[in-house]
Formats: sequence, C-alpha cells, structure tokens
Amino acid sequence: MLELLTSETPNGWKVSILLEELGEPYKVTPIALTDRVQKQDWYVALNPNGRIPTLVDHDAGDFAIFESGAILLYLAEKFGRFIPTDAQDRSRVIQWVMWQMSGLGPMMGQATVFNRYFDEKLPSVIDRYVRESQRLFGVMDAHLSIRDYLVGDYSIADIACFPWVRGHEWAGVDMGGFPHLQRWFDRISVRPAVQRGLLIPTPPTDAEMAEKTTKQGKTILA
Amino acid sequence: MLELLTSETPNGWKVSILLEELGEPYKVTPIALTDRVQKQDWYVALNPNGRIPTLVDHDAGDFAIFESGAILLYLAEKFGRFIPTDAQDRSRVIQWVMWQMSGLGPMMGQATVFNRYFDEKLPSVIDRYVRESQRLFGVMDAHLSIRDYLVGDYSIADIACFPWVRGHEWAGVDMGGFPHLQRWFDRISVRPAVQRGLLIPTPPTDAEMAEKTTKQGKTILA
Repeated sequence: MLELLTSETPNGWKVSILLEELGEPYKVTPIALTDRVQKQDWYVALNPNGRIPTLVDHDAGDFAIFESGAILLYLAEKFGRFIPTDAQDRSRVIQWVMWQMSGLGPMMGQATVFNRYFDEKLPSVIDRYVRESQRLFGVMDAHLSIRDYLVGDYSIADIACFPWVRGHEWAGVDMGGFPHLQRWFDRISVRPAVQRGLLIPTPPTDAEMAEKTTKQGKTILA
Repeated sequence: MLELLTSETPNGWKVSILLEELGEPYKVTPIALTDRVQKQDWYVALNPNGRIPTLVDHDAGDFAIFESGAILLYLAEKFGRFIPTDAQDRSRVIQWVMWQMSGLGPMMGQATVFNRYFDEKLPSVIDRYVRESQRLFGVMDAHLSIRDYLVGDYSIADIACFPWVRGHEWAGVDMGGFPHLQRWFDRISVRPAVQRGLLIPTPPTDAEMAEKTTKQGKTILA
C-alpha cells in the first residue's frame, strides 16, 4: 500500500493527481500545517525538510520519499506510466519537472507570499515575483504553441505544473495573454482524475479554503 | 562530444564540476549573461527557459538539455557514475537534487538578490530569505551529522548542493553553527575535480568576479 502524507497545497495536489491517474490504492494521511505537524519528530524522520508531501511505499520496506518532484518520478517509474520509455523523451519530462521545481513553484510561491501573507505590502517585491511568474507562463505558452502537452503525451511534467498554474489567481498572477497555456490548462482541468486529486486530502468550502490557506501562509512564514 | 553552455554561477558550476569528476572530454561555450546571450533565439531554441546552463550531447543527435538538475541526472545515468544503482538509494539522490533545485537554490538566490542587487534595501525581505536559507543549512547539517555525504558515497546530490553552499558569503547567509555542513563542505572543496570545475568557463580574478557578478545580477533582475 502507498501512503500519501499531504495537505491542500499545489505540491500536495501534484502527487494526489498522479495517484488518482494511476488508479492504484493509496491511503491519505492529512497533515495539519496550522498545527505544525510537519515539524514533529515522527514526520521529520520521514521527511528531513519538514514540508509536505511525503510518500511512504509500505510495499517497499516503508520507503519514505520527500520532495514532490522526486515522488512523481518514483511513482511514474514504479508503475511505468506518465513518463516516456524513450531515453531522450524521458529526459525531456525530467527537464520540465525540474523547471517546475526550481522556477514555476518557487516563484509563484513567492508571489503568493508577498501578495497575501507578508506583513508589509511591498509593491516592488510583488512586481518582481509577478513578472517572473509571467515570464515563466510565457515560456510554457511558447512551448505549448505547437504541442498539446509539455512532452509528447500527458505526463508527470504536466502534472507537476498544473496545480501551480491553477493557483495563479490566488498568487495574484494574471494569466491573460497566454492562450496556449490556457488551452493546456483547460485540457487537463476536465480530467476526472485531476478533479478527484484536487479534493485530497479534504474537499474544503471556498470560505474554509481561504481561511486555512491564509493560516498556512502565516505558518510557513513563521 | 559533450558541449556545456555556461557562465560563472552556482548552477553552471554544478555541471562543470560533474564533467570534471567524470573526466570525459567536453567543450565549453561561455554565455555572456551581461550581453543577454541567453535570451537570443539560437540559445532559446536549445533552452526554452533562456537561462544557463545548457548541455548539448553531440553524440546523441545534438540532444539539448536544460535545467541543471536534469543535466546532472542525464550525465550520471549516461556514464553510470555518481548515482547509486540501488533503486532506493537512487531515489534518495534524486530527492536531494530536487531539494536543492526547489529549496536551497531558489532561496539562496533570493537572499543574494535582496542582499546585493535589488534597488531598495528591504530588511524584512532580506531576513526572510536569510532565515529560510539557514533553515535549509540546518536540514543539511542534521542529515550530515551521521553521514559523510548526503546519500552513501559522494554523488550528484552533493555536487548539486556544493556550489550553493559555497556562495553563502556572497548571498549574505552566515554558515556558522553548522559544523557537520562545514565538514562536508571542506571534504568536497579539496577534490581536484571540484577545484577545476569552479574555473569553468573562466577563472576570474576576485575583482573581475565581483564586478561581473554584480552586472549579472542587474541583468537577471531586468
């Protein structure tokens, strides 16, 4: 059995979406970020970084995996799905997963922090991260202008990027002017497994989500 | 023949250090960030993100690879070195490479920007990124308290993190109080291949380095 320790964030949804796409059985263990459960000793023993998500593969000696990008790659390789077999296409998928991990995620994360959670309103800092996020949207948009998905068929590269692009309004990053990115986004949004994955670990109401996410933001900053 | 398109930055040095460790022949093409060469059409055709480094494998149909973490993985797998063969240890190495790509690199990058290049001096923002960088140093320090390297033997996980830890002074992040991290750093620093890799693409004088890096920072912000 696979166990996903997660919370309602883009990095958590990357993994729950992939697990729903795979259709393999898995157990969800919600991690309450507001209670700083991710900093408790038992959790840090599984995930030395003290962040979500963590995957534990109980069929492989309780092997624990941290970093959402590494979890995506582990699962894709374990089941031989959502990653190409061709060596170069496989590398291309890993390149885009790395791009999401090092660019899209961190920069939209900073945009979210300074738009929503930081105590001071700092227009120049907000502008820096909004512009960098939009530059990254532009990179995807250009790449997707001649492709339906980032590399060949729908893969973990798309799954890695999707929840971050989805969070653009919350992050305060306008997605207008990126028609190819929008079409890619719409194409993935309608997938039933994606819709199910976004309800993991809990399907919050809008009001609950707003409050919870704000608290989480404060926690992350603390 | 392998070709590395690079400049004098931590992400570039990750790859030049690995290439020096491998001892395989490679060609270096310096990319002048101050001239925005990385945004020229010919370069973006190789690297859609318009950043350095890029690796081109001319022995594999001129296959171009972007994102330093993906390049490390490609080279380690191509030559079967600096990555374990055991599946779980291999995943552990990838986990730490992902951790560097998503955490250590971006956060120390932001610390550098706000300590050195940003037009305004914003103490609360500098504090945010210095503290987060030191939290990440603490994660490495705890992990290295019972290990010589991040995963088993010296691997691309160590190579990914080393140039960013090395840049702590430039980033304005104090490394005092992390004795295990310091010992790991000292152990890697003395490797001849590491010392050679840090001279790629050019061995600058201290004064040239300071001026060049400042200009690059301005360019990256533009």
